[in-house]
Amino acid sequence: MAAWVLPDHIADVLPSEARHIEELRRLCLDTARGFGYELVMPPLLEHVDSLLSAPGSQQDLQTFKMVDQLSGRSLGLRIDTTPQVARIDAHLLNRSGVTRLCYCGPVVHTLPASPYATREPLQFGAEIYGHTGLEADLEILQLALQSLRTAGLADFHVDLSDARILPALLKGHALSPELSATISDALSHKNVSGMRELGKHLPQPLAKALQTLVQMYGDISVLAQARQEFSQWPEVVHALDQLEWLASHVKHPVSIDLADLRGFAYYSGPRFSVFVPETSDALARGGRYDEVGAVFGRKRPAAGFSMDIKALVSLLAHPQPQAAIRAPWGEDEALSQTIAQLRSQGHTVVCMLPGHESEVDEFHCDRELFEHQGKWTLRPLKTN
Amino acid sequence: MAAWVLPDHIADVLPSEARHIEELRRLCLDTARGFGYELVMPPLLEHVDSLLSAPGSQQDLQTFKMVDQLSGRSLGLRIDTTPQVARIDAHLLNRSGVTRLCYCGPVVHTLPASPYATREPLQFGAEIYGHTGLEADLEILQLALQSLRTAGLADFHVDLSDARILPALLKGHALSPELSATISDALSHKNVSGMRELGKHLPQPLAKALQTLVQMYGDISVLAQARQEFSQWPEVVHALDQLEWLASHVKHPVSIDLADLRGFAYYSGPRFSVFVPETSDALARGGRYDEVGAVFGRKRPAAGFSMDIKALVSLLAHPQPQAAIRAPWGEDEALSQTIAQLRSQGHTVVCMLPGHESEVDEFHCDRELFEHQGKWTLRPLKTN
Repeated sequence: MAAWVLPDHIADVLPSEARHIEELRRLCLDTARGFGYELVMPPLLEHVDSLLSAPGSQQDLQTFKMVDQLSGRSLGLRIDTTPQVARIDAHLLNRSGVTRLCYCGPVVHTLPASPYATREPLQFGAEIYGHTGLEADLEILQLALQSLRTAGLADFHVDLSDARILPALLKGHALSPELSATISDALSHKNVSGMRELGKHLPQPLAKALQTLVQMYGDISVLAQARQEFSQWPEVVHALDQLEWLASHVKHPVSIDLADLRGFAYYSGPRFSVFVPETSDALARGGRYDEVGAVFGRKRPAAGFSMDIKALVSLLAHPQPQAAIRAPWGEDEALSQTIAQLRSQGHTVVCMLPGHESEVDEFHCDRELFEHQGKWTLRPLKTN
Repeated sequence: MAAWVLPDHIADVLPSEARHIEELRRLCLDTARGFGYELVMPPLLEHVDSLLSAPGSQQDLQTFKMVDQLSGRSLGLRIDTTPQVARIDAHLLNRSGVTRLCYCGPVVHTLPASPYATREPLQFGAEIYGHTGLEADLEILQLALQSLRTAGLADFHVDLSDARILPALLKGHALSPELSATISDALSHKNVSGMRELGKHLPQPLAKALQTLVQMYGDISVLAQARQEFSQWPEVVHALDQLEWLASHVKHPVSIDLADLRGFAYYSGPRFSVFVPETSDALARGGRYDEVGAVFGRKRPAAGFSMDIKALVSLLAHPQPQAAIRAPWGEDEALSQTIAQLRSQGHTVVCMLPGHESEVDEFHCDRELFEHQGKWTLRPLKTN
């Protein structure tokens, strides 16, 4: 195969898209800083033992493995930055109070998450540690939505769910891991008939509760319905109360999808997913995951979200590139100074190297520097 | 070993340093854009065949390898972005005229480049394709120096060298690869006595020329000396002419080190290295490498440079963080609006979540929002 063929689901990002990704990266990180989130940069590579809390899991299959020449140990490429940030909170910062952290960097997956997904997303996210109350969940949700708005996304909707509902329903039933997985799968795919079939092997009232749960999505009124249906399960009612509080405080219309279990397995409380009409994959996911630092020996209350900037960029029209200035190449000191000054003011000045004066610019040059009565001046340029 | 221990020469970047790295990343990319360099983002992973033109080489040893689950082929993590950018120029853009490209992203090395180096540098660089003349070499050198100045580095010096000198001297002598490598090594380490020893196995005038070359470093007057010593080798004289032209045009004091052969092997003409007093490793390297696109079937004139932003940051004092504003948590609509407005103006506003009001801030908060006669106003905050 030719040397320039890239692996499937791996791509170069060319100028117009790269510039847009860079702009969104800056906007997202600046939005997080505005909320008081400090930037951290965990490494791309870690010991596999640190990256994976569950060998043989979905995460394990998603992780590229390498051998460390320095130690002989097995290293992995991160598939998600959240556990790394939890490690930083637990061991490096080790603060007792509220800690707010954000990050933006590549993650790598052995297999694409969906038929059109890249295997190298650019993950942006934020995490808040040390606060148990819903105010932390709300702040994370507000930051996620503000990041999307700042990026220029207008048409998106938010689904709320809660990771505690299914475990509360299953509590006391010793189900096999296979059966649990089949139940989760039926919920994720909203497979009503499949769930009815499964119900034949389950005791009542669990069978009925799961058949109800798989249909518990829609507008905010779903919460009231669910409250009636699940009134026997106080933990579910508590989760529904929390979702109602979040929905009433977020100042953005939300819908409810209590069957949504997709994304990473570490969620332990309220969850949210942001969707756009163009795709069925969530653009951003977040919520509470108090257990995520446990593997590092310091379990702290935690909530956070993440999104792929590359997926976000694919939904937006690329902005027009900033127009540039064309300048001749020359050894004239006054020319050099004029060019340096324009660049220091934020202008792009492209020098036409000798012999290339008639080439079409890669930049959109709408002005040019020319010498007039011994002074270098800007004049408009006819555009191609 | 505990789950939070990172591999050697791999580290988390904590907030104060991460913020500084992010600032320099933006400054460097914006400087390159000011010169008309378009951003590209090649992938972290490629087929090993694409990344490595020479199996068994130093690059091969430096490259982490993985198996692609989709194809069964061998993938590698990039150790250097330059060949990838050459591929983009050759196959994706495929322009006939001058193309200017820049990039900034992580590269990964199996072994650290020096005893204190990270195995995950953040490589920033720029490349110009399609122009054979020295104007391209000069522009790349000027962009490298302007990037360092913009980053706040004041005390650095520039060494010029040329990759054609040693091959010109060795031409016509069928030396074994081992002997050639020993000669390169003696030059790189400025090993005068070692070179004298080697000379015993080499014909005159090559032996004398190499003993001269190993001592050809110092101020700009070295060029005149070299011109006398190497007058028999027209290709060397031509290289010296080009270095003299570059030295006279760069508007920064330069020194000469004709024995410098370190860095990647792809250089094919004038080269430069930027040094700081704090370390003996070059902070930035660049020059001409017309051969770099050959493996992709399209050899174009090319010059470029790269540097590690993490190494650059380690030389500079971190700037003071921007002061922030402390705000109470509350459901008051006027408070929410005031906070949103301050954030949209670029301020950092940290909400004190209920129960955490007395905690020391991670951010340096020097003002706070308080309610006065029904209006939310800023007042100075006594700092800790």
